[in-house]
Amino acid sequence: MRTVREEDYVRVIEVLVEWWGGRDLSDLLPRLFFQHFQDTSFIIEDKGKIVGFIVGFISQTKPSEAYIHFVGVHSNYRKQRIGTKLYEHFFACVRAKGCDTVKCITSPVNTVSIAYHINIGFRIEEGDKVLDGIHVQKNYDGRGHDRVVFVKKI
Amino acid sequence: MRTVREEDYVRVIEVLVEWWGGRDLSDLLPRLFFQHFQDTSFIIEDKGKIVGFIVGFISQTKPSEAYIHFVGVHSNYRKQRIGTKLYEHFFACVRAKGCDTVKCITSPVNTVSIAYHINIGFRIEEGDKVLDGIHVQKNYDGRGHDRVVFVKKI
Repeated sequence: MRTVREEDYVRVIEVLVEWWGGRDLSDLLPRLFFQHFQDTSFIIEDKGKIVGFIVGFISQTKPSEAYIHFVGVHSNYRKQRIGTKLYEHFFACVRAKGCDTVKCITSPVNTVSIAYHINIGFRIEEGDKVLDGIHVQKNYDGRGHDRVVFVKKI
Repeated sequence: MRTVREEDYVRVIEVLVEWWGGRDLSDLLPRLFFQHFQDTSFIIEDKGKIVGFIVGFISQTKPSEAYIHFVGVHSNYRKQRIGTKLYEHFFACVRAKGCDTVKCITSPVNTVSIAYHINIGFRIEEGDKVLDGIHVQKNYDGRGHDRVVFVKKI
């Protein structure tokens, strides 16, 4: 586990394409996150290969709040608590920097992600519609882009 | 001219679709920028209508560096120096917060944007290829996403 460097960016984007079945996610994860939020973003490598990463930052507007923008874990390593280690490391890091709250979002269709976040202690914020018992914020990231919003006190 | 608020997000995304001919740019400009970088992001309104905005932040990794992520100006207001007012306001704001450098990027095909940035004092960083005399950084934002990188001392 170490903080990210700008040089990691191209490698991360390449493995993401692999992990997400060819989908190009570079619009969602531009290089800027690997340049400007290095001290709150982490990577886990195994024998020089990236097996997981977390990209987050501390809110400039609310310095007591941290935000997790993106987490990726290699599918072969999914049962090895890589994700949990990344989240826990992030929580400890931003707590040491004065944060007491962490937020993140996911898509309502991503039921695995929703269950995972609840399991590690996130609470779902109240939404403006309820889908299969889950509160959802409509058009959160633009028209048609509904999101589930998670918050956790750390 | 005022700082952005989270409530501006949906309105900005809606006008962007208009300004950019129906293209959905919400992946490039998620709500997080309107939540966490409010004090370095600005909007200009005319009679309650958004006519321009700039979204930027101060690098968490290099606090002397600011980054401009997105600028949009209503096409009917393009000759009224709205863009220049936004950039100048941003420069003054981040200078007051201790920055001495501003960076931003554009796509190599966007020759209007390249000329504009040079005109307001940005320098193009050296790239790994030269296209019509312009230095370009290959695969900057992922494979196939070449970018021109601008830097300006403020």
